[in-house]
Amino acid sequence: MIWDQTIIELAPLQRGFHLVTNEVLAQAPSLANCEMGLLHLFIQHTSASLAVNENADPDVRGDLERHFNVIVPENAPHYEHVMEGPDDMPAHIKSILIGPSLTLPVSRGHLALGTWQGIYLCEHRDRAGSRRIVATLQGRW
Amino acid sequence: MIWDQTIIELAPLQRGFHLVTNEVLAQAPSLANCEMGLLHLFIQHTSASLAVNENADPDVRGDLERHFNVIVPENAPHYEHVMEGPDDMPAHIKSILIGPSLTLPVSRGHLALGTWQGIYLCEHRDRAGSRRIVATLQGRW
Amino acid sequence: MIWDQTIIELAPLQRGFHLVTNEVLAQAPSLANCEMGLLHLFIQHTSASLAVNENADPDVRGDLERHFNVIVPENAPHYEHVMEGPDDMPAHIKSILIGPSLTLPVSRGHLALGTWQGIYLCEHRDRAGSRRIVATLQGRW
Repeated sequence: MIWDQTIIELAPLQRGFHLVTNEVLAQAPSLANCEMGLLHLFIQHTSASLAVNENADPDVRGDLERHFNVIVPENAPHYEHVMEGPDDMPAHIKSILIGPSLTLPVSRGHLALGTWQGIYLCEHRDRAGSRRIVATLQGRW
Repeated sequence: MIWDQTIIELAPLQRGFHLVTNEVLAQAPSLANCEMGLLHLFIQHTSASLAVNENADPDVRGDLERHFNVIVPENAPHYEHVMEGPDDMPAHIKSILIGPSLTLPVSRGHLALGTWQGIYLCEHRDRAGSRRIVATLQGRW
Repeated sequence: MIWDQTIIELAPLQRGFHLVTNEVLAQAPSLANCEMGLLHLFIQHTSASLAVNENADPDVRGDLERHFNVIVPENAPHYEHVMEGPDDMPAHIKSILIGPSLTLPVSRGHLALGTWQGIYLCEHRDRAGSRRIVATLQGRW
Protein backbone atom coordinates (compact mmCIF):
# COMPACT_ATOMS: atom_id res chain seq x y z
CA MET A 1 0.00 0.00 0.00
CA ILE A 2 1.33 3.48 -0.84
CA TRP A 3 1.08 6.47 1.49
CA ASP A 4 3.31 9.43 0.67
CA GLN A 5 2.97 13.08 1.66
CA THR A 6 5.00 16.15 0.84
CA ILE A 7 4.79 19.94 0.74
CA ILE A 8 4.72 21.59 -2.67
CA GLU A 9 5.81 25.20 -2.78
CA LEU A 10 4.69 27.26 -5.77
CA ALA A 11 6.60 30.45 -6.53
CA PRO A 12 4.56 33.67 -6.31
CA LEU A 13 2.13 34.15 -9.20
CA GLN A 14 0.22 37.21 -10.23
CA ARG A 15 -3.50 37.48 -9.57
CA GLY A 16 -5.41 35.24 -11.94
CA PHE A 17 -5.85 31.63 -13.02
CA HIS A 18 -2.67 29.69 -13.80
CA LEU A 19 -2.02 26.28 -15.34
CA VAL A 20 0.40 24.55 -12.95
CA THR A 21 0.09 20.83 -13.77
CA ASN A 22 3.79 20.44 -14.48
CA GLU A 23 4.97 22.47 -11.47
CA VAL A 24 2.73 20.41 -9.18
CA LEU A 25 3.78 17.04 -10.58
CA ALA A 26 7.47 17.98 -10.38
CA GLN A 27 7.18 18.35 -6.60
CA ALA A 28 4.41 15.83 -5.79
CA PRO A 29 5.14 12.29 -4.59
CA SER A 30 6.14 10.17 -7.57
CA LEU A 31 3.18 8.50 -9.25
CA ALA A 32 5.42 6.20 -11.27
CA ASN A 33 4.87 3.05 -9.23
CA CYS A 34 1.24 3.65 -8.36
CA GLU A 35 -0.97 1.19 -10.25
CA MET A 36 -4.20 2.67 -8.88
CA GLY A 37 -4.71 5.49 -6.42
CA LEU A 38 -5.63 9.06 -5.59
CA LEU A 39 -3.54 12.22 -5.37
CA HIS A 40 -4.91 14.76 -2.90
CA LEU A 41 -3.81 18.40 -3.08
CA PHE A 42 -4.67 20.88 -0.33
CA ILE A 43 -3.68 24.55 -0.39
CA GLN A 44 -2.89 25.94 3.07
CA HIS A 45 -4.25 29.42 2.33
CA THR A 46 -7.62 31.19 2.44
CA SER A 47 -7.12 33.55 -0.50
CA ALA A 48 -6.04 31.18 -3.26
CA SER A 49 -7.64 27.99 -4.54
CA LEU A 50 -7.16 24.90 -6.70
CA ALA A 51 -9.26 23.87 -9.70
CA VAL A 52 -9.25 21.65 -12.77
CA ASN A 53 -10.07 23.10 -16.16
CA GLU A 54 -9.05 23.51 -19.78
CA ASN A 55 -5.33 23.16 -20.44
CA ALA A 56 -5.27 24.66 -23.94
CA ASP A 57 -6.57 28.14 -24.80
CA PRO A 58 -5.22 30.70 -22.27
CA ASP A 59 -8.25 32.90 -22.96
CA VAL A 60 -10.22 30.54 -20.72
CA ARG A 61 -8.01 31.55 -17.78
CA GLY A 62 -8.43 35.25 -18.58
CA ASP A 63 -12.21 34.90 -18.85
CA LEU A 64 -12.32 33.08 -15.52
CA GLU A 65 -10.44 35.91 -13.80
CA ARG A 66 -12.73 38.51 -15.40
CA HIS A 67 -15.92 36.61 -14.59
CA PHE A 68 -15.02 35.89 -10.96
CA ASN A 69 -14.37 39.62 -10.59
CA VAL A 70 -17.96 40.22 -11.72
CA ILE A 71 -19.46 37.65 -9.35
CA VAL A 72 -17.23 38.79 -6.48
CA PRO A 73 -16.38 42.47 -7.01
CA GLU A 74 -14.04 44.57 -4.90
CA ASN A 75 -15.46 47.25 -2.60
CA ALA A 76 -18.96 45.80 -2.28
CA PRO A 77 -20.88 47.96 0.21
CA HIS A 78 -21.64 44.99 2.49
CA TYR A 79 -17.98 44.06 3.12
CA GLU A 80 -16.81 44.72 6.69
CA HIS A 81 -13.50 42.82 6.46
CA VAL A 82 -11.62 45.57 4.60
CA MET A 83 -8.45 46.21 6.62
CA GLU A 84 -6.15 44.17 4.37
CA GLY A 85 -7.10 45.89 1.12
CA PRO A 86 -9.90 45.73 -1.45
CA ASP A 87 -8.67 42.43 -2.91
CA ASP A 88 -8.77 40.58 0.44
CA MET A 89 -12.43 39.85 1.16
CA PRO A 90 -13.14 38.95 -2.50
CA ALA A 91 -10.20 36.52 -2.24
CA HIS A 92 -11.86 34.73 0.69
CA ILE A 93 -15.17 34.46 -1.15
CA LYS A 94 -13.55 33.19 -4.35
CA SER A 95 -11.57 30.61 -2.41
CA ILE A 96 -14.80 29.26 -0.87
CA LEU A 97 -16.53 29.18 -4.27
CA ILE A 98 -13.65 27.30 -5.92
CA GLY A 99 -12.33 25.32 -2.96
CA PRO A 100 -8.99 24.55 -1.31
CA SER A 101 -8.41 21.01 -2.52
CA LEU A 102 -8.47 18.54 -5.38
CA THR A 103 -8.63 14.75 -5.33
CA LEU A 104 -7.38 13.33 -8.62
CA PRO A 105 -7.43 9.70 -9.78
CA VAL A 106 -4.13 7.97 -10.50
CA SER A 107 -4.01 5.07 -12.92
CA ARG A 108 -0.94 3.06 -14.03
CA GLY A 109 1.52 5.67 -12.84
CA HIS A 110 -0.21 8.75 -14.23
CA LEU A 111 -2.94 11.21 -13.32
CA ALA A 112 -6.14 9.99 -15.02
CA LEU A 113 -7.15 13.43 -16.28
CA GLY A 114 -9.20 14.02 -19.40
CA THR A 115 -7.42 15.14 -22.57
CA TRP A 116 -8.23 18.79 -22.02
CA GLN A 117 -7.82 18.97 -18.25
CA GLY A 118 -5.04 20.61 -16.26
CA ILE A 119 -4.50 21.77 -12.67
CA TYR A 120 -5.08 25.46 -11.93
CA LEU A 121 -3.68 27.58 -9.14
CA CYS A 122 -6.21 30.38 -8.73
CA GLU A 123 -4.45 33.35 -7.17
CA HIS A 124 -6.91 35.85 -5.75
CA ARG A 125 -4.54 38.36 -4.12
CA ASP A 126 -2.80 41.26 -5.89
CA ARG A 127 0.58 40.68 -4.29
CA ALA A 128 0.73 37.13 -2.99
CA GLY A 129 3.76 35.28 -1.76
CA SER A 130 4.57 31.67 -2.55
CA ARG A 131 1.78 29.16 -1.94
CA ARG A 132 2.06 25.89 0.01
CA ILE A 133 0.16 22.78 -1.03
CA VAL A 134 0.10 19.55 1.00
CA ALA A 135 0.22 16.68 -1.51
CA THR A 136 -0.85 13.23 -0.31
CA LEU A 137 -0.61 10.16 -2.51
CA GLN A 138 -2.30 6.93 -1.57
CA GLY A 139 -2.82 3.83 -3.65
CA ARG A 140 -1.51 0.39 -4.38
CA TRP A 141 1.54 -0.79 -6.29
CA MET B 1 -7.89 -3.57 1.79
CA ILE B 2 -10.06 -2.66 -1.22
CA TRP B 3 -8.84 -0.70 -4.23
CA ASP B 4 -10.98 -0.81 -7.34
CA GLN B 5 -11.18 1.58 -10.26
CA THR B 6 -13.33 1.68 -13.35
CA ILE B 7 -14.60 4.05 -16.04
CA ILE B 8 -18.27 4.99 -15.96
CA GLU B 9 -19.75 6.19 -19.22
CA LEU B 10 -22.95 8.20 -19.03
CA ALA B 11 -25.08 8.47 -22.17
CA PRO B 12 -25.50 12.01 -23.57
CA LEU B 13 -27.84 14.19 -21.52
CA GLN B 14 -29.39 17.50 -22.40
CA ARG B 15 -28.15 20.70 -20.82
CA GLY B 16 -29.22 20.91 -17.20
CA PHE B 17 -28.96 19.15 -13.85
CA HIS B 18 -29.69 15.41 -13.81
CA LEU B 19 -30.14 12.89 -11.04
CA VAL B 20 -27.86 9.97 -11.95
CA THR B 21 -27.37 8.05 -8.69
CA ASN B 22 -28.63 4.78 -10.14
CA GLU B 23 -26.76 5.07 -13.43
CA VAL B 24 -23.52 5.76 -11.55
CA LEU B 25 -23.94 2.92 -9.05
CA ALA B 26 -24.79 0.47 -11.82
CA GLN B 27 -21.35 1.01 -13.39
CA ALA B 28 -19.24 1.83 -10.30
CA PRO B 29 -17.13 -0.78 -8.49
CA SER B 30 -19.41 -2.90 -6.31
CA LEU B 31 -19.83 -1.48 -2.82
CA ALA B 32 -21.42 -4.69 -1.55
CA ASN B 33 -18.40 -6.01 0.35
CA CYS B 34 -17.06 -2.67 1.54
CA GLU B 35 -17.57 -2.34 5.29
CA MET B 36 -16.13 1.19 5.42
CA GLY B 37 -14.68 3.28 2.64
CA LEU B 38 -14.87 6.12 0.15
CA LEU B 39 -16.11 6.24 -3.43
CA HIS B 40 -14.37 8.89 -5.53
CA LEU B 41 -15.92 10.08 -8.79
CA PHE B 42 -14.01 12.29 -11.22
CA ILE B 43 -15.43 13.60 -14.49
CA GLN B 44 -12.84 13.84 -17.28
CA HIS B 45 -14.36 16.95 -18.87
CA THR B 46 -14.16 20.71 -18.42
CA SER B 47 -17.74 21.60 -19.33
CA ALA B 48 -19.75 19.27 -17.10
CA SER B 49 -19.58 18.70 -13.36
CA LEU B 50 -20.68 16.49 -10.48
CA ALA B 51 -22.70 17.53 -7.44
CA VAL B 52 -24.84 16.17 -4.62
CA ASN B 53 -28.28 17.59 -3.97
CA GLU B 54 -31.98 16.91 -3.47
CA ASN B 55 -33.22 13.64 -4.98
CA ALA B 56 -36.95 14.39 -4.82
CA ASP B 57 -38.61 17.44 -6.40
CA PRO B 58 -37.34 17.86 -10.00
CA ASP B 59 -38.09 21.60 -9.75
CA VAL B 60 -34.85 21.89 -7.76
CA ARG B 61 -32.90 20.76 -10.81
CA GLY B 62 -34.77 23.22 -13.06
CA ASP B 63 -34.15 26.09 -10.65
CA LEU B 64 -30.44 25.20 -10.48
CA GLU B 65 -30.14 25.34 -14.27
CA ARG B 66 -31.99 28.66 -14.38
CA HIS B 67 -30.00 30.21 -11.53
CA PHE B 68 -26.59 29.15 -12.83
CA ASN B 69 -27.56 30.78 -16.14
CA VAL B 70 -28.09 34.03 -14.22
CA ILE B 71 -24.76 33.83 -12.37
CA VAL B 72 -22.93 32.73 -15.52
CA PRO B 73 -24.76 34.16 -18.53
CA GLU B 74 -23.96 33.52 -22.17
CA ASN B 75 -22.41 36.27 -24.27
CA ALA B 76 -20.96 38.30 -21.41
CA PRO B 77 -18.96 41.18 -22.94
CA HIS B 78 -15.74 40.14 -21.16
CA TYR B 79 -15.59 36.62 -22.69
CA GLU B 80 -12.73 36.14 -25.16
CA HIS B 81 -13.00 32.34 -25.45
CA VAL B 82 -15.97 32.37 -27.83
CA MET B 83 -14.95 30.19 -30.79
CA GLU B 84 -16.85 27.07 -29.66
CA GLY B 85 -20.22 28.77 -29.19
CA PRO B 86 -22.00 30.90 -26.59
CA ASP B 87 -22.53 27.94 -24.22
CA ASP B 88 -18.81 27.03 -24.06
CA MET B 89 -17.18 29.62 -21.80
CA PRO B 90 -20.14 29.58 -19.35
CA ALA B 91 -19.69 25.78 -19.21
CA HIS B 92 -16.07 26.18 -18.11
CA ILE B 93 -17.03 28.68 -15.40
CA LYS B 94 -19.90 26.54 -14.10
CA SER B 95 -17.66 23.48 -13.99
CA ILE B 96 -15.17 25.38 -11.80
CA LEU B 97 -17.94 26.65 -9.52
CA ILE B 98 -19.44 23.17 -9.06
CA GLY B 99 -16.32 21.04 -9.41
CA PRO B 100 -15.22 17.91 -11.26
CA SER B 101 -15.31 15.36 -8.47
CA LEU B 102 -17.16 13.91 -5.50
CA THR B 103 -15.86 11.86 -2.59
CA LEU B 104 -18.70 9.95 -0.94
CA PRO B 105 -18.60 7.86 2.23
CA VAL B 106 -19.37 4.14 2.02
CA SER B 107 -20.70 2.31 5.03
CA ARG B 108 -21.70 -1.38 5.31
CA GLY B 109 -21.92 -1.86 1.57
CA HIS B 110 -23.86 1.31 0.72
CA LEU B 111 -23.26 4.99 0.00
CA ALA B 112 -23.79 6.84 3.30
CA LEU B 113 -25.88 9.62 1.73
CA GLY B 114 -28.54 11.57 3.58
CA THR B 115 -32.19 10.66 2.99
CA TRP B 116 -32.69 13.45 0.48
CA GLN B 117 -29.33 13.32 -1.32
CA GLY B 118 -28.57 12.07 -4.80
CA ILE B 119 -25.73 12.38 -7.32
CA TYR B 120 -26.12 14.99 -10.05
CA LEU B 121 -24.49 15.14 -13.46
CA CYS B 122 -24.51 18.84 -14.33
CA GLU B 123 -24.37 19.14 -18.11
CA HIS B 124 -23.37 22.63 -19.18
CA ARG B 125 -23.16 22.19 -22.97
CA ASP B 126 -26.07 22.42 -25.41
CA ARG B 127 -25.08 19.35 -27.41
CA ALA B 128 -22.76 17.21 -25.34
CA GLY B 129 -21.65 13.69 -26.07
CA SER B 130 -21.39 10.93 -23.49
CA ARG B 131 -19.44 11.76 -20.33
CA ARG B 132 -16.63 9.71 -18.77
CA ILE B 133 -16.22 9.44 -15.01
CA VAL B 134 -13.30 7.67 -13.31
CA ALA B 135 -14.72 5.85 -10.28
CA THR B 136 -12.29 4.75 -7.56
CA LEU B 137 -13.37 2.74 -4.55
CA GLN B 138 -11.14 2.28 -1.56
CA GLY B 139 -11.95 0.87 1.82
CA ARG B 140 -11.78 -2.21 3.96
CA TRP B 141 -13.76 -5.44 3.94
CA MET C 1 -3.52 0.86 8.10
CA ILE C 2 -6.17 3.08 9.71
CA TRP C 3 -9.83 3.13 8.69
CA ASP C 4 -12.25 4.73 11.13
CA GLN C 5 -15.70 6.21 10.54
CA THR C 6 -18.16 7.95 12.79
CA ILE C 7 -21.15 10.28 12.73
CA ILE C 8 -20.63 13.83 13.99
CA GLU C 9 -23.75 15.65 15.13
CA LEU C 10 -23.58 19.45 15.28
CA ALA C 11 -26.15 21.24 17.41
CA PRO C 12 -28.48 23.60 15.51
CA LEU C 13 -26.84 26.83 14.36
CA GLN C 14 -28.39 29.98 13.06
CA ARG C 15 -28.22 30.84 9.39
CA GLY C 16 -24.71 31.95 8.44
CA PHE C 17 -21.09 30.79 8.35
CA HIS C 18 -19.73 29.23 11.55
CA LEU C 19 -16.25 28.20 12.65
CA VAL C 20 -16.61 24.63 13.95
CA THR C 21 -13.09 23.20 13.89
CA ASN C 22 -13.11 22.32 17.58
CA GLU C 23 -16.63 20.87 17.57
CA VAL C 24 -15.75 18.68 14.59
CA LEU C 25 -12.45 17.44 16.00
CA ALA C 26 -14.05 16.65 19.37
CA GLN C 27 -16.35 14.12 17.69
CA ALA C 28 -14.18 12.94 14.76
CA PRO C 29 -12.10 9.76 14.89
CA SER C 30 -8.94 10.45 16.89
CA LEU C 31 -6.09 11.71 14.73
CA ALA C 32 -3.55 11.16 17.52
CA ASN C 33 -1.97 8.00 16.16
CA CYS C 34 -2.21 8.86 12.48
CA GLU C 35 1.24 9.55 11.08
CA MET C 36 -0.06 10.41 7.62
CA GLY C 37 -3.60 10.37 6.30
CA LEU C 38 -6.77 12.09 5.21
CA LEU C 39 -9.88 13.09 7.14
CA HIS C 40 -13.01 13.15 5.01
CA LEU C 41 -16.10 15.03 6.17
CA PHE C 42 -19.45 14.67 4.40
CA ILE C 43 -22.61 16.52 5.43
CA GLN C 44 -25.78 14.48 4.89
CA HIS C 45 -27.95 17.47 3.99
CA THR C 46 -28.78 19.50 0.87
CA SER C 47 -29.21 22.92 2.50
CA ALA C 48 -25.98 23.27 4.49
CA SER C 49 -22.37 22.89 3.41
CA LEU C 50 -18.77 22.58 4.58
CA ALA C 51 -15.89 24.91 3.76
CA VAL C 52 -12.42 25.92 4.87
CA ASN C 53 -11.60 29.57 5.44
CA GLU C 54 -10.18 32.20 7.76
CA ASN C 55 -10.28 31.29 11.46
CA ALA C 56 -9.61 34.77 12.88
CA ASP C 57 -11.73 37.85 12.07
CA PRO C 58 -15.45 36.98 12.41
CA ASP C 59 -16.27 39.76 9.93
CA VAL C 60 -15.16 37.34 7.21
CA ARG C 61 -18.03 35.01 8.15
CA GLY C 62 -20.53 37.89 8.16
CA ASP C 63 -19.33 39.11 4.77
CA LEU C 64 -19.64 35.58 3.36
CA GLU C 65 -23.25 35.31 4.52
CA ARG C 66 -24.04 38.74 3.07
CA HIS C 67 -22.30 38.08 -0.24
CA PHE C 68 -23.84 34.65 -0.81
CA ASN C 69 -27.23 36.31 -0.25
CA VAL C 70 -26.39 38.67 -3.13
CA ILE C 71 -25.28 35.88 -5.49
CA VAL C 72 -28.21 33.67 -4.48
CA PRO C 73 -31.10 35.93 -3.42
CA GLU C 74 -34.42 34.80 -2.00
CA ASN C 75 -37.57 35.09 -4.11
CA ALA C 76 -35.86 35.13 -7.50
CA PRO C 77 -38.60 35.11 -10.17
CA HIS C 78 -37.25 31.94 -11.80
CA TYR C 79 -37.56 29.74 -8.68
CA GLU C 80 -40.27 27.07 -8.94
CA HIS C 81 -39.27 25.08 -5.83
CA VAL C 82 -40.88 27.47 -3.33
CA MET C 83 -43.12 25.30 -1.14
CA GLU C 84 -40.70 25.09 1.80
CA GLY C 85 -40.15 28.83 2.19
CA PRO C 86 -38.06 31.58 0.57
CA ASP C 87 -34.82 30.34 2.19
CA ASP C 88 -35.12 26.81 0.79
CA MET C 89 -34.18 27.03 -2.89
CA PRO C 90 -31.31 29.48 -2.18
CA ALA C 91 -30.07 26.92 0.38
CA HIS C 92 -29.87 24.21 -2.30
CA ILE C 93 -27.98 26.51 -4.68
CA LYS C 94 -25.53 27.65 -2.00
CA SER C 95 -24.88 24.07 -0.97
CA ILE C 96 -23.97 23.18 -4.56
CA LEU C 97 -21.71 26.23 -4.88
CA ILE C 98 -19.86 25.45 -1.63
CA GLY C 99 -20.12 21.68 -1.59
CA PRO C 100 -21.05 18.91 0.86
CA SER C 101 -17.62 17.59 1.76
CA LEU C 102 -14.05 18.33 2.73
CA THR C 103 -10.95 16.17 2.47
CA LEU C 104 -8.25 17.41 4.83
CA PRO C 105 -4.66 16.20 5.15
CA VAL C 106 -3.50 14.68 8.43
CA SER C 107 0.14 14.79 9.39
CA ARG C 108 1.77 13.46 12.58
CA GLY C 109 -1.50 13.29 14.50
CA HIS C 110 -2.91 16.67 13.49
CA LEU C 111 -4.86 18.29 10.67
CA ALA C 112 -2.32 19.88 8.33
CA LEU C 113 -4.22 23.13 7.95
CA GLY C 114 -2.60 26.47 7.26
CA THR C 115 -2.15 28.93 10.14
CA TRP C 116 -5.28 30.88 9.25
CA GLN C 117 -7.55 28.03 8.21
CA GLY C 118 -10.52 26.59 10.06
CA ILE C 119 -13.52 24.41 9.24
CA TYR C 120 -16.82 26.16 8.51
CA LEU C 121 -20.34 24.83 8.80
CA CYS C 122 -22.34 26.97 6.36
CA GLU C 123 -25.96 26.93 7.48
CA HIS C 124 -28.27 28.12 4.73
CA ARG C 125 -31.69 27.58 6.37
CA ASP C 126 -33.43 30.03 8.71
CA ARG C 127 -34.51 27.41 11.24
CA ALA C 128 -32.36 24.32 10.79
CA GLY C 129 -32.10 21.37 13.10
CA SER C 130 -28.88 19.62 14.06
CA ARG C 131 -26.63 18.60 11.19
CA ARG C 132 -25.06 15.16 10.62
CA ILE C 133 -21.58 14.75 9.18
CA VAL C 134 -20.04 11.39 8.28
CA ALA C 135 -16.35 11.56 9.27
CA THR C 136 -13.98 9.02 7.75
CA LEU C 137 -10.32 8.82 8.72
CA GLN C 138 -7.86 6.79 6.72
CA GLY C 139 -4.13 6.71 6.95
CA ARG C 140 -1.19 4.86 8.35
CA TRP C 141 0.25 4.63 11.85
